[in-house]
Amino acid sequence: MALVVQKFGGTSVADPDRIRAVAEHVVATRRRGDDVVVVVSAMGKTTDDLVRLAHEVSAAPADREMDMLLTAGERISMALLCMAIIEQGEPAVSFTGSQAGILTDTTHTKAKILDVRADRLREALAAGSVAVVAGFQGVSTASDVTTLGRGGSDTTAVALAAALEASACEIYTDVTGVFTADPRVVPEARRLPRVSFDEMLEMAATGGRVLALRSVEFARNHGVRVHVRSSFTWEPGTWVVPDEELEVEGMEQAIISGVTHDTSEAKVTIARVPDRPGVAARLFRALADDAVNVDMIVQNVSTEGHTDISFTVPHADLTRTLTVVEAQLGGIGAAGITHDADVGRVSIVGAGMKSNPGVAATMFETLAAEGINIEMISTSTIRVSCVVAEADVQRAVVALHRAFDLGTS
Amino acid sequence: MALVVQKFGGTSVADPDRIRAVAEHVVATRRRGDDVVVVVSAMGKTTDDLVRLAHEVSAAPADREMDMLLTAGERISMALLCMAIIEQGEPAVSFTGSQAGILTDTTHTKAKILDVRADRLREALAAGSVAVVAGFQGVSTASDVTTLGRGGSDTTAVALAAALEASACEIYTDVTGVFTADPRVVPEARRLPRVSFDEMLEMAATGGRVLALRSVEFARNHGVRVHVRSSFTWEPGTWVVPDEELEVEGMEQAIISGVTHDTSEAKVTIARVPDRPGVAARLFRALADDAVNVDMIVQNVSTEGHTDISFTVPHADLTRTLTVVEAQLGGIGAAGITHDADVGRVSIVGAGMKSNPGVAATMFETLAAEGINIEMISTSTIRVSCVVAEADVQRAVVALHRAFDLGTS
Repeated sequence: MALVVQKFGGTSVADPDRIRAVAEHVVATRRRGDDVVVVVSAMGKTTDDLVRLAHEVSAAPADREMDMLLTAGERISMALLCMAIIEQGEPAVSFTGSQAGILTDTTHTKAKILDVRADRLREALAAGSVAVVAGFQGVSTASDVTTLGRGGSDTTAVALAAALEASACEIYTDVTGVFTADPRVVPEARRLPRVSFDEMLEMAATGGRVLALRSVEFARNHGVRVHVRSSFTWEPGTWVVPDEELEVEGMEQAIISGVTHDTSEAKVTIARVPDRPGVAARLFRALADDAVNVDMIVQNVSTEGHTDISFTVPHADLTRTLTVVEAQLGGIGAAGITHDADVGRVSIVGAGMKSNPGVAATMFETLAAEGINIEMISTSTIRVSCVVAEADVQRAVVALHRAFDLGTS
Repeated sequence: MALVVQKFGGTSVADPDRIRAVAEHVVATRRRGDDVVVVVSAMGKTTDDLVRLAHEVSAAPADREMDMLLTAGERISMALLCMAIIEQGEPAVSFTGSQAGILTDTTHTKAKILDVRADRLREALAAGSVAVVAGFQGVSTASDVTTLGRGGSDTTAVALAAALEASACEIYTDVTGVFTADPRVVPEARRLPRVSFDEMLEMAATGGRVLALRSVEFARNHGVRVHVRSSFTWEPGTWVVPDEELEVEGMEQAIISGVTHDTSEAKVTIARVPDRPGVAARLFRALADDAVNVDMIVQNVSTEGHTDISFTVPHADLTRTLTVVEAQLGGIGAAGITHDADVGRVSIVGAGMKSNPGVAATMFETLAAEGINIEMISTSTIRVSCVVAEADVQRAVVALHRAFDLGTS
């Protein structure tokens, strides 16, 4: 008998019909003999509705109260799911984040999990019940209700799977797995039967929306095998597994596993920054202090004692970024600042890249052949990213997907 | 500096505009120098909506999960109210029933308060914050989320007022106080500036819908002064105070304080019950075992060794009642059972009744003059109730209100 954690997102429990369908699946899993811990998100658009209400009563809702408010969402979905499971003949007990022992720090709206004290879940499982846990939420060391921020329910599921030593963490969603590219952009995109944690991390960081970056990091750090699959078709999806596991199996590593894209960021360039120690540190510390989420940073080699520094930030942070940087310009002696909101990032990700030289060159050639200008480049050992004009992003994705032969044959 | 508990019902916090208005009132109270603990119900029809959802996923929703579900309602309203208070410049912190220390027994959906451990509220008040508490909910001795049943938010407010030794418990609602009769039935009904706990108890028990019976009992037992008033007009309402307080003030006690009515019950009569010890006990034990909520019981004097027993039960319990009683008929040797769902109870309530003989006679004469037949009578020291045909109820209320000169002059 194994223990399985099954996580269902908002679209999976959007209405009573969906909740009954999920309950059927949970009951079937249980009746095959496995212990089941279920993690649920709030129903459909509940969270958005609550956020809207908050902004109707307050221009800047207090973080602590926002957490109290939003956690009502999972409370509703998990109680309903328990009722539906019980209705189908299996015992089920719901647990808030606090009751499930998800202990966090006190950073409201984006708390970090400090510990998982899942005694009550173990007791419920030992008593033969399905344990249904509210995703996204925890209780802080100050006994206040906290939420884990974006993708928090995935993180709850992975953290519980780690704490309970589950055999797998199944993340049910409205897509059937992880694809070689966004199928809305590349119709011939193919579902990957498995990807490594590292690849999944790079994909999540560069626009793959299937799993939250944070939950993948948690899964990698704790060795939790994640199965991303659909709660609408119930077909097997994509396994996200330790890198070694893929290598051990002796499978031919695909050079490239997928092409991702992201148009949510803007590019900022600071021109003619004096090339001396501490300048970049000063600049990015100022941005960090203002909680600007800087992503890709590129600095070219120095020419005549000056260099250009470019970086990307979320569109929402652009105005704040420009204010912060302009205040720094005089101090660091830079010439000026330019920005471009109409950019996008296209990335190729693949563990096989490590042992295959020339992958980046193929990428650049492919974009050149399409007449697409590259504005910024950055690489990791298993990823190459190019910033291009936003208008060129879709064409770039399609061309790269074809160039690396990722589609269904 | 005093401490005031202010409780706001569902209609008082039905939408963002209402929540902002309530926040303004709370902030104004705070700025007059009082400490404020606020108790809120779920917004408008939230609870009804959640109950409906529950019945869409389960024919018989599990009680534990129903409590988990419904408590989401107050969580939403209290977080929003805190945000609105903070927006207006006063610090505010929300507390679930559990966080507020409302410890209950384990009877889900109608838990009883065992203790109030309000340390966190005291800390919040000491720190200068308004404490906003979820009404209707608590945490059981088994660490599960519980609800207090109908009128539970009033009970939360009174229990907190008792535990914190508040100077007053203000119950804000959609009416302006306690009236001499339902103003929808008797347009000249008058708001009572004050009533005694005992009178309020009798009114609540006989159809006065303003305060839940249970919260009045709690207030009486703990000597909590309750002020029932409107969150729409904010005018002073009705004070519910200890009986002694009214007497000490040397006020002329009105003979009758109000006329109440209730058409939610049906009458059941068991004919020719053998007049021997234990028969009534057997009958009502059987009903109690089936959780039938028997209200008024009347037994006439015995004639020829037999008597008739009549009682009233909520319409919803009638079918179950008839089944239970029919199963007992043979055993107790009664002749048969009749019932009438089309009845109503009219009651007059007044502490002055104790020292004024002839009040019951006046009531019967008044009904007789209206040609209204009395089907059952029961009395307490400060109340007389008559069961009459449902069609006669409104006419009876109007006539009694006039006979006892209760209207505005």
